[in-house]
Amino acid sequence: MNQEKVLELRKWMEKNGVDLAYVSDASHIGYFSGFESNPMERVLALFIPIEKDPFLFAPGLEVEDAKASSFEYDVVGYLDSQDPFSLIVEEIKKRYGSPKKIALEKNQLVLDRYQRLSDAFPAADFSADMTPLVQELQLYKTEEECQRLIEAGSTADLAFEIGFRHVRPGITEEEIVAEIEYELKKKGIKEMSFPTEVLAGPNAASPHGTPGKNTCKENELVLFDLGTIVNGYCSDATRTVACGKPTDHQKDIYDIVLEAQLKAQEAVKPGITCGDLDKIARDVIEAHGYGDYFNHRLGHGIGTTIHEFPQIVGGNDLVVKEGMCFSIEPGIYLPNDVGVRIEDCVYVTKDGCVPFTKTSKELIVL
Amino acid sequence: MNQEKVLELRKWMEKNGVDLAYVSDASHIGYFSGFESNPMERVLALFIPIEKDPFLFAPGLEVEDAKASSFEYDVVGYLDSQDPFSLIVEEIKKRYGSPKKIALEKNQLVLDRYQRLSDAFPAADFSADMTPLVQELQLYKTEEECQRLIEAGSTADLAFEIGFRHVRPGITEEEIVAEIEYELKKKGIKEMSFPTEVLAGPNAASPHGTPGKNTCKENELVLFDLGTIVNGYCSDATRTVACGKPTDHQKDIYDIVLEAQLKAQEAVKPGITCGDLDKIARDVIEAHGYGDYFNHRLGHGIGTTIHEFPQIVGGNDLVVKEGMCFSIEPGIYLPNDVGVRIEDCVYVTKDGCVPFTKTSKELIVL
Repeated sequence: MNQEKVLELRKWMEKNGVDLAYVSDASHIGYFSGFESNPMERVLALFIPIEKDPFLFAPGLEVEDAKASSFEYDVVGYLDSQDPFSLIVEEIKKRYGSPKKIALEKNQLVLDRYQRLSDAFPAADFSADMTPLVQELQLYKTEEECQRLIEAGSTADLAFEIGFRHVRPGITEEEIVAEIEYELKKKGIKEMSFPTEVLAGPNAASPHGTPGKNTCKENELVLFDLGTIVNGYCSDATRTVACGKPTDHQKDIYDIVLEAQLKAQEAVKPGITCGDLDKIARDVIEAHGYGDYFNHRLGHGIGTTIHEFPQIVGGNDLVVKEGMCFSIEPGIYLPNDVGVRIEDCVYVTKDGCVPFTKTSKELIVL
Repeated sequence: MNQEKVLELRKWMEKNGVDLAYVSDASHIGYFSGFESNPMERVLALFIPIEKDPFLFAPGLEVEDAKASSFEYDVVGYLDSQDPFSLIVEEIKKRYGSPKKIALEKNQLVLDRYQRLSDAFPAADFSADMTPLVQELQLYKTEEECQRLIEAGSTADLAFEIGFRHVRPGITEEEIVAEIEYELKKKGIKEMSFPTEVLAGPNAASPHGTPGKNTCKENELVLFDLGTIVNGYCSDATRTVACGKPTDHQKDIYDIVLEAQLKAQEAVKPGITCGDLDKIARDVIEAHGYGDYFNHRLGHGIGTTIHEFPQIVGGNDLVVKEGMCFSIEPGIYLPNDVGVRIEDCVYVTKDGCVPFTKTSKELIVL
């Protein structure tokens, strides 16, 4: 149990007159309780009352693991043949009576689970949304969290090293992915934070392209977007390299993206807004006439999940502060021609930022 | 666009007085529209009105891919800097006026997205839940879907073959996982349907154990639970093999699980209920005194997702019919001792069932 974070949650509950918080998102349950799990369609729920002890509600086959975790309170299990919400309602009544105000994670909780709860407590007030609070808590990483993100970042560097070693004309994108993940898994890195992207030539011009039988070719670029999960924390980084000598056009596009990435990353420090950072990168790309081809936000927060609060996007007035961790990832995608993206995730220090990944951002020719 | 399935949906809409259906789950959007995507936290939505043309709402960077898919109607994109729900509401009003009854996927749609929509259409009736309909539609696989599941099953067999080849005393669980996924990826199988489980010795006694540095040891069992995704359809199968000569105790446990698995699988045919199937397997295990150590349902549906309707679980009176596809996966987990699970997914024929995986279920000694 992360007592420090639970204390923050309880302060918020007190301020908002909430007597029971229902944490429904598995990664947030991990964040507060210390019990990491992917329950898929089964119900996993953490109930934190304002005063009494919390309890964790988990699928029967997870109960032993939950008890062995750092969560030191009751774990209530259910069998697949039982109706989880009847049991949850019973437990809440038995432990906490009839809560008057129950806070929910409104950007996570699905409608039918909410309806089961609101039917059981018709007099309760469900207006309190703890999503902004959880986002706010997760926004600032502790030193320990930063340390885990640094570790995850260094395994992403390792992944680039492996991948770059395999770039040669004729190798398919999916073969390079296989090599990267094979070597990482053998080193004990169990999980990628998202499906590894290796996209060669024009295939990289689709920002969400899929690696396949497309091959690396001489005088084309190859885009690597990848990340790992280490001790529950994610890395996410992108490099674009050249297979053989790049054309001048490819180099031009690369240099624009690099300029945008570096300018934005250099501008990161407490006091600037997320929207300003997006604008700095976008201005560079627009000045070169490629604004229409940078069709996504500049970045996103990173932590226990790959995409979290904040969004580094135009119009976001959120002020950057020390301890925030997010990506800076401008790109230019010219359909049927070339795609370049360069991305580092960084943590904000008191007067700047430090990237989690150290792989060179100069155009590497392989 | 899967016109046949959309027709079924529209029949249901007509019967229930629904004039607009909001499909919110990415895999269901793929099922109806033909556009497969994982939007993560971004908004992907499919709106199907009772009469006019549907439209797909997608993140800007997915629009090109969506247009290139088999979905032949309008694709509306949004930028990360825009508020997706303002645009969605605008589009709905422009295209369909003010719908009176909007159907939702209540076991998928999160609360804040529902609230955005219900705030925008305060007079609309949101009582219709299309979850049961989608579950019902997905329950019966077409011949083409069965074909894809058969293909996915044969790649799971291939995965077993690779994995078994690497079992030897001293190899770690994670090394075997690396070998399996490496060879599959090189053969173009891009994605596992869930994180591959290779669990050696007592580690297999946790039904959701995680492969790590634990090694295979002489005279211990090794459990493989794995699956692949091929053309959007999943496989899922489990085998438990012996590393060297198994002990009599291990063989006893294995034989009980095998008996339970075979008896249930042989009983699958149209007319029996899902609950009966669970009971057949559970009775075998209980008769041998291990009922408490089979702590999960017998099985789950399979298709475009790894766990779907129906649940093969005690008390489920749903009657099995031709075209259903689900797993039969009894297990016995004796903590700190031994874990055995044997699983095939099957499709129901007119007088029995056929498994998607063909790897022998006799105890293989490696």
